[in-house]
Amino acid sequence: MDVLVPFDAVDPKSRLGPELDVRERREFAEAMLADVLDALAGTDAEPVVLATGALDCSVPVPVDVDERPLSEAVNARLAARDGAPLAVVMADLALATPEALAALFERRGDVVLAPGRGGGTNALVVRHPEFRVDYHGASVHDHREVARRVDADLGEVDSFRLATDVDEATDLVEVLLHSRDRAHDWLVEAGYRVVAGDGRVGVRRR
Amino acid sequence: MDVLVPFDAVDPKSRLGPELDVRERREFAEAMLADVLDALAGTDAEPVVLATGALDCSVPVPVDVDERPLSEAVNARLAARDGAPLAVVMADLALATPEALAALFERRGDVVLAPGRGGGTNALVVRHPEFRVDYHGASVHDHREVARRVDADLGEVDSFRLATDVDEATDLVEVLLHSRDRAHDWLVEAGYRVVAGDGRVGVRRR
Repeated sequence: MDVLVPFDAVDPKSRLGPELDVRERREFAEAMLADVLDALAGTDAEPVVLATGALDCSVPVPVDVDERPLSEAVNARLAARDGAPLAVVMADLALATPEALAALFERRGDVVLAPGRGGGTNALVVRHPEFRVDYHGASVHDHREVARRVDADLGEVDSFRLATDVDEATDLVEVLLHSRDRAHDWLVEAGYRVVAGDGRVGVRRR
Repeated sequence: MDVLVPFDAVDPKSRLGPELDVRERREFAEAMLADVLDALAGTDAEPVVLATGALDCSVPVPVDVDERPLSEAVNARLAARDGAPLAVVMADLALATPEALAALFERRGDVVLAPGRGGGTNALVVRHPEFRVDYHGASVHDHREVARRVDADLGEVDSFRLATDVDEATDLVEVLLHSRDRAHDWLVEAGYRVVAGDGRVGVRRR
């Protein structure tokens, strides 16, 4: 499976701004990217990082630099494929495992979605020449609509690991609880630990 | 599979207090319970609602009233089973499907966990005489530890639908986006709709 892994190399993880400074956000984002690429390496994926700028990635994978907005850059590549299978897997899926990704790639459907929390589309597979992405807003809803409009068979995978993108401070606890890889170790090194709260647990930094 | 479905009949969904008044919280909680029971009806489950008080449930299922705190009430029943399989499925898993629940029941393991967001344990299966639950804090972490301590084979299922319990206002959007059942219809009737935000989408009430 050919896989695009979009990565914001200019201002990664900006919504973690209240938690992490610019250098830290970059380091943490690169740790998550490396974890995603490691998980992909346990599947039949042939990944290419689709980056908005130059990138120093610790995992040896081709990098394709495209400064355009995410949806535009992805759609340019979908158009060029003309229905040949292409997957898009976000670079902040720190909990992704080879099993969860393989289940996505193997699921039948002209379009297969992995919904993210809060209406996102954290990963998808496109095998239809007319399907295009729009990552703005409740994209999982919009992508279902687009699939219907172009008469594509729609599949969805049900995965907590693929639904968990790491954008906000409350997401960090999932990395601490459910990963043992680079992003987890980075958070531990940075002093994060799990703390019990009123309902769900959260994180605190030393 | 024998299944306990714990339900707080006294003050359900208290963390939705800022959103919904007492009567609404009760109605919405009962709608979610009915959705969970419907999903269980599509599996081999024989469910019993474990309620902290009297309950008027629209789905005909036995109700076992136990006023003790959740962990204590569940552990009393686990002790009585002496290792015979028993599942516990939370009543606020409004996105649960027969497929997701069947995957949980069928997964091998003396203890099988379905992690929830924020460290919870949204569902589990126990087939070990010594395993006990403790739902306080990061219970998924604690349950992994307990399974190790009693030398139980541990399994986990990876399901967004089972990971999504509905406790807080930000969770309501998941029901609007990924369910078409009672809880979804209740929210729509109450005036909720999806609104785009800065990152993830949220909800707004009319």
